[in-house]
Amino acid sequence: MLVVMEAGATREAVESVCSEIRRMGLTAHAMPGATRTAIGITGNTGPVPRARLESLPGVLEVIQVTQPWKLASREVHPDPTVVWVGGERGAARVPIGGARVVVMAGPCAVETAEQTLTIARAVREAGAALLRGGAFKPRTSPYSFQGLGAEGLAILSRARSETGLPIVTEAVDTESLKLVAEQADMVQLGARNMQNFQLLRAAGRCGKPILLKRGLAATLEELFMAAEYVMSEGNYQVVLCERGVRTFADHTRNTLDLSVVPAVKRLSHLPIIVDPSHGTGRRNKVAPLSRAALAVGADGIMVEVHHAPETALSDGPQAIVPGEFAALMAQLRRIAPVVDREL
Amino acid sequence: MLVVMEAGATREAVESVCSEIRRMGLTAHAMPGATRTAIGITGNTGPVPRARLESLPGVLEVIQVTQPWKLASREVHPDPTVVWVGGERGAARVPIGGARVVVMAGPCAVETAEQTLTIARAVREAGAALLRGGAFKPRTSPYSFQGLGAEGLAILSRARSETGLPIVTEAVDTESLKLVAEQADMVQLGARNMQNFQLLRAAGRCGKPILLKRGLAATLEELFMAAEYVMSEGNYQVVLCERGVRTFADHTRNTLDLSVVPAVKRLSHLPIIVDPSHGTGRRNKVAPLSRAALAVGADGIMVEVHHAPETALSDGPQAIVPGEFAALMAQLRRIAPVVDREL
Amino acid sequence: MLVVMEAGATREAVESVCSEIRRMGLTAHAMPGATRTAIGITGNTGPVPRARLESLPGVLEVIQVTQPWKLASREVHPDPTVVWVGGERGAARVPIGGARVVVMAGPCAVETAEQTLTIARAVREAGAALLRGGAFKPRTSPYSFQGLGAEGLAILSRARSETGLPIVTEAVDTESLKLVAEQADMVQLGARNMQNFQLLRAAGRCGKPILLKRGLAATLEELFMAAEYVMSEGNYQVVLCERGVRTFADHTRNTLDLSVVPAVKRLSHLPIIVDPSHGTGRRNKVAPLSRAALAVGADGIMVEVHHAPETALSDGPQAIVPGEFAALMAQLRRIAPVVDREL
Amino acid sequence: MLVVMEAGATREAVESVCSEIRRMGLTAHAMPGATRTAIGITGNTGPVPRARLESLPGVLEVIQVTQPWKLASREVHPDPTVVWVGGERGAARVPIGGARVVVMAGPCAVETAEQTLTIARAVREAGAALLRGGAFKPRTSPYSFQGLGAEGLAILSRARSETGLPIVTEAVDTESLKLVAEQADMVQLGARNMQNFQLLRAAGRCGKPILLKRGLAATLEELFMAAEYVMSEGNYQVVLCERGVRTFADHTRNTLDLSVVPAVKRLSHLPIIVDPSHGTGRRNKVAPLSRAALAVGADGIMVEVHHAPETALSDGPQAIVPGEFAALMAQLRRIAPVVDREL
Repeated sequence: MLVVMEAGATREAVESVCSEIRRMGLTAHAMPGATRTAIGITGNTGPVPRARLESLPGVLEVIQVTQPWKLASREVHPDPTVVWVGGERGAARVPIGGARVVVMAGPCAVETAEQTLTIARAVREAGAALLRGGAFKPRTSPYSFQGLGAEGLAILSRARSETGLPIVTEAVDTESLKLVAEQADMVQLGARNMQNFQLLRAAGRCGKPILLKRGLAATLEELFMAAEYVMSEGNYQVVLCERGVRTFADHTRNTLDLSVVPAVKRLSHLPIIVDPSHGTGRRNKVAPLSRAALAVGADGIMVEVHHAPETALSDGPQAIVPGEFAALMAQLRRIAPVVDREL
Repeated sequence: MLVVMEAGATREAVESVCSEIRRMGLTAHAMPGATRTAIGITGNTGPVPRARLESLPGVLEVIQVTQPWKLASREVHPDPTVVWVGGERGAARVPIGGARVVVMAGPCAVETAEQTLTIARAVREAGAALLRGGAFKPRTSPYSFQGLGAEGLAILSRARSETGLPIVTEAVDTESLKLVAEQADMVQLGARNMQNFQLLRAAGRCGKPILLKRGLAATLEELFMAAEYVMSEGNYQVVLCERGVRTFADHTRNTLDLSVVPAVKRLSHLPIIVDPSHGTGRRNKVAPLSRAALAVGADGIMVEVHHAPETALSDGPQAIVPGEFAALMAQLRRIAPVVDREL
Repeated sequence: MLVVMEAGATREAVESVCSEIRRMGLTAHAMPGATRTAIGITGNTGPVPRARLESLPGVLEVIQVTQPWKLASREVHPDPTVVWVGGERGAARVPIGGARVVVMAGPCAVETAEQTLTIARAVREAGAALLRGGAFKPRTSPYSFQGLGAEGLAILSRARSETGLPIVTEAVDTESLKLVAEQADMVQLGARNMQNFQLLRAAGRCGKPILLKRGLAATLEELFMAAEYVMSEGNYQVVLCERGVRTFADHTRNTLDLSVVPAVKRLSHLPIIVDPSHGTGRRNKVAPLSRAALAVGADGIMVEVHHAPETALSDGPQAIVPGEFAALMAQLRRIAPVVDREL
Repeated sequence: MLVVMEAGATREAVESVCSEIRRMGLTAHAMPGATRTAIGITGNTGPVPRARLESLPGVLEVIQVTQPWKLASREVHPDPTVVWVGGERGAARVPIGGARVVVMAGPCAVETAEQTLTIARAVREAGAALLRGGAFKPRTSPYSFQGLGAEGLAILSRARSETGLPIVTEAVDTESLKLVAEQADMVQLGARNMQNFQLLRAAGRCGKPILLKRGLAATLEELFMAAEYVMSEGNYQVVLCERGVRTFADHTRNTLDLSVVPAVKRLSHLPIIVDPSHGTGRRNKVAPLSRAALAVGADGIMVEVHHAPETALSDGPQAIVPGEFAALMAQLRRIAPVVDREL
């Protein structure tokens, strides 16, 4: 950590900051410069009480040098983590973060058994490794369709039995988490819940792998800290997911930030996938951004597929049809080897 | 709602959209233009299945004309709502949204009884109407100080008994909500929880007025929809709070969006206050933005005050000291009458 | 400047960075920490070749500590600058940045002599100190009305003769700058030109005070650097102007960032005013944000006034009518003394 | 265009808006709804005076339905444009926007003849089709290195003679444009100049193909309108370039918005390339985002290459070395066929 003093800070002010640092049991390194003095801090094992330093007279700002996340950091865990999903109740056992990239596909919302089974068969046929589908839907409006709930989970279970695809579905709160953790193979936490710390902690104790989506205005550090909440409860099976951030741009619903993929790879050992369906909100951009996600080095993608998007109860305009999905899979199979992966 | 067709859409495509609209029991108004056709929809009482229309061939986009929120809307409730807080356990009864603007002040976090009482007396003396203070703290890091919890609530209760100031404090999840709703006079929901729908619903049933903070990347519509979640459970005592949004700007922690105040006043009957402490994150900007908040027409402000910010356990750099707070109050008393308010 | 090494950087890498720093004629201060080493740099009078350091093996990042602007900095010029405008061709001499806050008002675009004179008389009557009005208009579309040009300048001159108000009007490029600098009392540079360095340099040699608007995505540092371009050519008569930045928010055309006012006051000696007309783009938000601008400590505001906004050729929806302007002035006169200013 | 009336608008207000529309020579289509009335407008060939309508009593908002750009629109020019660069002074003739994707590579800034020739040979060897390199540099600070100017152009010419690569280099203002248009094969206009309308117009008359970079906070519509400025002067040889937009995210210098590529392809006939060097600002992200750019469907990329980035005078940390570039080219050659392109 580095304390930067104001240009006009007195020698007394500098000494007083150094004393305070020493009082914390740390070492202060004063570096007088041409226009101002900076003071380096070393010796800390835990977090430094930054606020206390920022409040001292003459202090311009306090710059953090070491990162505040630990369990998610590549520095403490240099090898990439492989998260295993499935292997129970008839589902295949699928690794995420290994040599094989993973495609999760399915409807935005589970609507009927027939709809879900139709789509599940189609995506399985085309090569998807997991089935996605919302039983509990977080909706901006209390008046919107909120999902089939437990009935939706039962439909997903049936689709798993039939296709062998492990299921990933969202838990929207601590109540639904219990049901989802019991029935699904992987628990998704949505962007709006990325800093729902009660839910993150509960997810850390739920015993199933977690798919953690980046919030709409979350920095990479905040995403890591959210993962840290889950991991600090003992659940290390965390997969991150980029799904677009909010900007001024209006040609897509969100702006998909693919540069976060190499950034995650550099700083963390956790796998990361990309969701181009929510990330763009437009059907005609799903295939291009899916290809880009694989090319940028993501460990997989999550795509919404619907056999009849015009009748979908939720997010129809961003779902692709099974034929488009199969064509996309053919393209992805050719891109994966370029980045030394398989599909 | 308005359906805009692509420039090259055929007459059949237009007719097919009109048919679909009629099948929904609605009325279609085709308006052929020089380069393209637009189709107006009228007759809907509830939401139109937009996705279905967007998926039809030849449709460029579907534009929503009427707003999706109802209970929070000024159109259904033309007169401004006054939310009453306190009146129990020795607390004064304070209206928010009336002629008198309201100042909520206190420490970021409750640390000790002595700290809280010292600050409570000081802000009361200077003219604050409510005491704020966090007992439960939502923290980005699982390793940060998470608040004193129930013990913090007990300290706040004691401060209320002594000063007569009603208490507003944050509930960070459904568990803490129970305790907070029992002990506090007003329940604060934080920016990171603005779309924690489970918590919003529970707040709608908790029986206490709600202070709902705008999320860091929330549109005004989403803020209204969050209020709608609370109100749809029967709790109409909702006060909105602007506390800064996330932008590229780096001279403040967040960018305080004061224009949202007149926008709320125009579209909704709910009161709105401003939090310049979190909105800027810098002590030297709290007083200027507090004055601006009153001048722009806010129903009040929420300010962090600490008698010794350099020792604060949380957010010290944005707290002002009691002397600064008293000076600020003197300025606010002169600004209030300019906008036909009192303080 | 501070060089942060990667956690696994070898002793040789650290030494090699220190050597490179010494080769630059500077002093290196290595600070070994628990997880990584940071190296402070002192002794630099000019810019450090940052890129060279960032490219060395083992370097994680290079953090800049001292600010890169000089002429605009309060550190080199502690007293606030007062910019004097007018005093020629019948115009009053008006100080900006002194005890008196300044209101600039007038039409968005000069349309006819009658329109401009009508509005000029009205704003003068209500207490405006400068007349604004666009003769050259920067337009997003090449097909939009681009202003009356030289004819517009002649109309503004006539309005100055009649009312005694100094004129501020925009130069959109180096050609129009010559005409504007000749005719107007103050030259406005628009947000889209904030980093048009050719124009900034020419403005630095034009001999008239400059009103420099912040770009739509400009950081405060970039705004200062733009001022530095003007000042480095010898023109120190620069007034900054906040006019809204671009964010995801959609209830206003831009998001007015009032916190930049105290930030400028802290870091620079240059005056700063606020333009709530462009900053919000909505007539009903102009008066509230104008009041807020004065309350936050701005040295003045710039407001669009039109006697018949429904016929305006440009930006009608954000202009207020003379009656609204007079009412606003009455409010501003009561707010100014609260921040120890006059109007 | 669509006029949306307020919920409480009277029948008279609606009629008055319709009259005004008819007075403009247009047709009004009133559509009374359950809560409000919307009025469609048809019959316009040019722009509708929107401001006049927005100012009428009872009008809530005016929604634009047809897009304001024409020459850049795919609706008026359904086939993709191929821009030809080079073919003179020893340079190959290179198509941009055809079956073959184009890689432009070279140093950020031209520093010496030796540096430029070394890099030019290396990128040519690896398969680049154009040589990039800045002779005139737009710099945030007036104190930074501003490029070699005319001398830099001469060095680039020499590199062209030797390698046969056409040259693309930036014009930073109307003065440098003359020199650049004379010497270079393609003129680059930078992000900060995207709305420098004087420069855009001059570029429209300069007789050379234009590479137009998207501004840091520019919407897609504004990018098209900037192209429209160039094209309306008669120069249809315009290639667009995405180079990152400004957001709250801090793990890259800018956020590269790859979704703009399919959006451009859908709405316009102009080619679009991607600049991952400026788009990320970090060397380790250049190759991943370059692959992603091709996979998303871009017509090419522009990459900074330097044989000794640690000594670069400008933007060293984002340049890749020739070996990395050659490895990247090998990957790009495998991705191109996946999207039916060659390299």
